[in-house]
Parts: sequence; structure tokens; C-alpha cells
Amino acid sequence: MIASGLVTSLIGMAQNTVEKTSVTLLGLGAMGTALARTWLATGHPLTVWNRTPARVAALAADGASAADSAAEAVAANTLIVVCLLDDASVDEALAGTDLADKDLVNLTTSTPAQARARAEWARERGARYLDGGIMAVPPMIGVPEAGGYVFYSGSRELFERHKETLGIPAATTYVGEDAGFAALHDVALLSAMYGMFAGTAHAFALIRNEDIDPASLAPLLADWLVAMAPAVHQTADHLRSSDFTTGVVSNLAMQVAGTPTFLSTAEQQGVSPELLSPYFELMRRRLTEDNGEEGLTGVIDLLVQ
Amino acid sequence: MIASGLVTSLIGMAQNTVEKTSVTLLGLGAMGTALARTWLATGHPLTVWNRTPARVAALAADGASAADSAAEAVAANTLIVVCLLDDASVDEALAGTDLADKDLVNLTTSTPAQARARAEWARERGARYLDGGIMAVPPMIGVPEAGGYVFYSGSRELFERHKETLGIPAATTYVGEDAGFAALHDVALLSAMYGMFAGTAHAFALIRNEDIDPASLAPLLADWLVAMAPAVHQTADHLRSSDFTTGVVSNLAMQVAGTPTFLSTAEQQGVSPELLSPYFELMRRRLTEDNGEEGLTGVIDLLVQ
Ligand SMILES: NC(=O)c1ccc[n+]([C@@H]2O[C@H](COP(=O)([O-])OP(=O)(O)OC[C@H]3O[C@@H](n4cnc5c(N)ncnc54)[C@H](OP(=O)(O)O)[C@@H]3O)[C@@H](O)[C@H]2O)c1
Ligand SMILES: NC(=O)c1ccc[n+]([C@@H]2O[C@H](COP(=O)([O-])OP(=O)(O)OC[C@H]3O[C@@H](n4cnc5c(N)ncnc54)[C@H](OP(=O)(O)O)[C@@H]3O)[C@@H](O)[C@H]2O)c1
Repeated sequence: MIASGLVTSLIGMAQNTVEKTSVTLLGLGAMGTALARTWLATGHPLTVWNRTPARVAALAADGASAADSAAEAVAANTLIVVCLLDDASVDEALAGTDLADKDLVNLTTSTPAQARARAEWARERGARYLDGGIMAVPPMIGVPEAGGYVFYSGSRELFERHKETLGIPAATTYVGEDAGFAALHDVALLSAMYGMFAGTAHAFALIRNEDIDPASLAPLLADWLVAMAPAVHQTADHLRSSDFTTGVVSNLAMQVAGTPTFLSTAEQQGVSPELLSPYFELMRRRLTEDNGEEGLTGVIDLLVQ
Repeated sequence: MIASGLVTSLIGMAQNTVEKTSVTLLGLGAMGTALARTWLATGHPLTVWNRTPARVAALAADGASAADSAAEAVAANTLIVVCLLDDASVDEALAGTDLADKDLVNLTTSTPAQARARAEWARERGARYLDGGIMAVPPMIGVPEAGGYVFYSGSRELFERHKETLGIPAATTYVGEDAGFAALHDVALLSAMYGMFAGTAHAFALIRNEDIDPASLAPLLADWLVAMAPAVHQTADHLRSSDFTTGVVSNLAMQVAGTPTFLSTAEQQGVSPELLSPYFELMRRRLTEDNGEEGLTGVIDLLVQ
């Protein structure tokens, strides 16, 4: 009997590995709902709360416990995940909850300063704190092959403890003890993406009134951008070494000399240069200040106060 | 004897396929020299000319015929490839050459309008004309795995006739009979690239004064940009269908609502927003003019007069 009980329990452990961590989730917007579904689907006991109760019903039907208040939801478990609109809504939702000894994981988008302040705020209330920045849209949540992930920063101990549970909705990337670093990485990547989108907007604008199918330009654009994206590795090497010339093939002098072609082409095509000219202007400024054998790395230091 | 002679000649044909086209190349700068080496290496008879004769010697030592003047070089062959600094230098170099019945391939960077005017200029002189835009730096020439290529536009017949010879230095992509289209595609791709570089400059600036290794940010940035580059396919679909909402996950209203996070983060990090704010400004303008369910495609039409 003992042996068979042991076998049963070993089978149970093999199936379940360990008991699934219970999760409290505050916020059932588009993102919160997507997160919630992945924990339910993997058998994590889940307690949910949303300001507007209507959004709770569907998840409750699928097995989530519906809390009547944020305070009740927070009281239910140790691991508290928050995914609300913005930092102000976190303030509002968590007012009147008891966070003592809680593991607070805040996936609400914030600035680095907001995240640092929130970490301090949590510490004052006796909670451990981890901040997250979600690099995914809701349809990518629970779909590992979609490539989305979440940056985490703050308590490393907290991250290690809940890595597995936090890894259910999307892959995890821990970027440091500074609670602001997840937000900083998030904003850095999305800022770079908006730059790329600005560049592609200009490219499509150039052919807008030509007999060129945008769908034939698109793969050429995508392939070119993918081929050029690794240039960031050289930039990183330059910044680390403070040597902005090593490995440069197209130097700044050549590139500045080439800018009139881009501006004239825009003018010929009736396209405003407003998305390109600020970068060209910095290239020109850098060239007069320093030597033309550099690549483009020096522009970065013109941006920083 | 006849049979063995036939076999010998078949072997000769298999080795050589057909006789290699003779090429005249005007311009032995960094790019011209790289092009020249690939034709010499593959056994194409090559006649070269450069304004400054010093650059001719090394290629002559490797088997190129050195012409004393551009006129002599042009007279030597039918296929004339030009790779000079800019459109004005093409004017200067080709003045006094007889282009009647020549196959003129101009790889000098130009604007679409310059390329169209050059095609007309060549036609008036009795030459067929093909314009090229080189999507590669010299170290990528003759290295197919480096992924460089050349856009061609203008005479399709000329392109078909010399496709094989032109394909020796780098892969070829023909983009239409309009002589300006190669330049337009070239400028469009490089403009998009500068947008991406502007975005990555902003991203690196954000972490410049933080304890974050640029070399740890770089792979995250590269992967993110590679993952987001295919967004251009949706943009192209939108432009073709004039329906700017299909398939949109993060709508314009949401994205505009998110912009303060990017601007505040830049401010907190002491980074000028000058490379990001023009795009955000267009997003805001588009939002007030049209509906928030669109993605970012509508911004393109704000750029075009
Ligand atoms: N969606 C995305 O593509 C995406 C991607 C990356 C990161 N994120 C981030 O994920 C977070 C949630 O985004 P989402 O897409 O789920 O947003 P959403 O669909 O607009 O949902 C917002 C959530 O916040 C709640 N809320 C707003 N103000 C509140 C307040 N004052 N007190 C309490 N609750 C409040 C809403 O409750 P009600 O239902 O009562 O309004 C709702 O649960 C945001 O920080 C967002 O930046 C989203
Ligand atoms: N290098 C690249 O990374 C790259 C990439 C893509 C496209 N391209 C394009 O390829 C073309 C050549 O570039 P490159 O890198 O070889 O430039 P380069 O090294 O500066 O060489 C310029 C060439 O143009 C000649 N030239 C300049 N002005 C002239 C004039 N008035 N009359 C006659 N010849 C003149 C120069 O002759 P001298 O020797 O007498 O000065 C030299 O042969 C340019 O249009 C460039 O935009 C270059």
C-alpha cells in the first residue's frame, strides 16, 4: 500500500512536476485577459479582479475565482500580477490593499522613473517587487512561436522564484536589479521600432504616386532592413570601446555627402523630408565637430545631454 | 578526328559556356575597382579608364587593358559600365565620347530625375541605357553570400542581354522600364535604413548613462527589429486596398496614447526626442483627421503632397 501510494504520488509529480503556483491577476483588459487564459489553460489556480466586473464573467466560467475587490484578490494569493492601463491606475487599484509579504509583479507599461518609484512604494508596504515590460501584443500571448517575451527587472530572487509561472504567457528576459530597467529596455526597443517605421513610411511615400506595386517594394524593404539591423553590433562595440571608427566601411564624410540625393529624391517625389532630415542634420553636425572617418555612432552622443 | 574535335569543342563550351562579354569600365574608385576585379577574375576582357591614371596600374597588372582616354575606352567595347562619383562627373567623363550603338550601364548613384534625364541624353546619342543602384559596399562585391545586389531599370532588352555579365559583381534585380526606378528603389531602401538607424541611435542614447552594456542591448534590438520589419507587408496591403484597418492589432489611438511614455522616458534619460517626435507628431495629426482604428499606414499620406 505504501509502495503503491508512493508510485501514485510520483506519477502525480511527474504529471504536475510541482503544485502549480496560485496567481492573482488585477486587470482584465485585452492584455490581462490573454495572460489569464494561459494560466487557466496550464492549471494554475487563478484569482482575478477587474474594475468593471463584466469582464470577469467569461474567465470565471473557465475556472477563475472572481474576487469582489482588489483587496480580496490580493489577499487570496502571494503572487500578485498587475496589468492595468497605466501607473495611475495601479495607484488607484492597489489603494486599500494589504501588500505585506506579497510578491508584486507589475506588467503595466510605465517609464523607468515610474517603475523605480513603484518599487520603492511596494517596499514601503512590505512587498517584494518585480517590474515587467511586455514585448508582445495580446494575440502573441501563449503562442511561444510568435516570439513575444517580457522584460523583467527588480528583485532577482522574486524573478527566480516565479520564473516558471511568469514564463507561461510568454518567454522571460531578466535585465537587472534596477526596477527601471525593464521599462527602459521596453521603451528602447519600441523607440527603435518607431524609427524603423518612420523610415519605411518615407520609403512607401516615395513610391506613392509611381506605378510601383507597394507589395513588390515590401519584401525588398523587409530584406534590406533585416540585413542592416545587425549594424547595431558595431554600434555597441564602438560605444564600449569609445573608438567610433573601427570596422567602418561607409564613413560619415561619404554618408553626409550622399544626403542631398535622399533629400532631392524626396523633393522630386513630392515627399516631405521631415522624418529623415533630423537624422541627416545630426550627421552633418557630428561631421563638423569630429572626424569624417567615423561611422554613425557619434550621432548618439549628440542626442544625450 | 571530327568526333574528337567536336568533343574538345563541347568541353570548351561547357567550361566557358559562351565567350565572355568584353566590358569597358569608366571609374576606378573604391566601387569601380571592386567591380573590375570580379570581371577580371571571371575572365571577362576588361578595358578600364580613370580620370586619375594612378588607379589604373594595379588593374592593368592583373590583365585589364588601360585606355588613355574615356573616348578610347568607350570605343573599345559595346558594353560600357560607368561608376563615377555623381551625375555631374558622368557628364564630364562622357563628354567627347561616341556613344552611338553602345550599351550604356550607369551604376553611378543618382536621383530618379537624373537617371531619367541621363536615359534621354543617352537615347539622343544613339545609346541604349540601363541605370543601376548598388545595394552593397565594396567589400560585398564579388561575395554573393554577403547578400548585396544591384537594382536595374531602363531598357529591359539591354538588361536581358547583359544579365549574366552584370550578375558577376553582385546579384541583379530589374525593377522596370522607367530609368528612374532603380534610383528610386535604391533611395527608398536606404531612406528606410536611415530611419532604422535613427531609431537605434535613440535607443542607445537612452542607455548611454546607465549601467547597461550596449553589447547586451544590441542583440535584443537586432532581434526586435528583424521581428518587426515584416510589418511592411501589412502596410503594402493597406496601400493597395486603401483599407488601412484590416489586420491592425495595435490601433493608432492606442499607439498615440502610448507616446507620452516614450517622450517622458527620453526626458528622464536626458535624451533629445528630436529623432522620434516628428513621427509621433504625424501619428497625432493623422488621429485627429481620421479614425483611431487604423494602424500607422495613414501617416504615409501625410508625407505626400
Ligand atoms: N495591448 C497591447 O498590445 C499591449 C502590449 C504591450 C503592453 N501592454 C500593456 O499592458 C497594459 C494593459 O493593456 P491592455 O491592452 O490590457 O489595456 P486595455 O485593454 O485598455 O485594459 C486596461 C485595463 O486597465 C483597467 N483600468 C484602467 N484604468 C483603471 C483604474 N483607474 N483603476 C482600475 N483599473 C483600471 C481597465 O479596467 P476596466 O475594464 O474597468 O476599464 C482594464 O482592465 C498596459 O499598460 C499596456 O501598455 C499592452
Ligand atoms: N562605395 C560605396 O560604398 C558605394 C555603395 C553604393 C554605391 N556607390 C556609388 O558608386 C559610385 C562610385 O563610388 P566610389 O565609392 O567608387 O567613389 P570614390 O571611391 O570616391 O570614386 C569616385 C570615382 O569617380 C571619379 N570621378 C569623380 N569626379 C570625376 C569627374 N569629374 N570626372 C571623372 N571622374 C570623376 C573618381 O576619379 P579620380 O580617381 O580621378 O578621383 C573615381 O574614379 C558613386 O556613385 C557611389 O554613390 C558606392
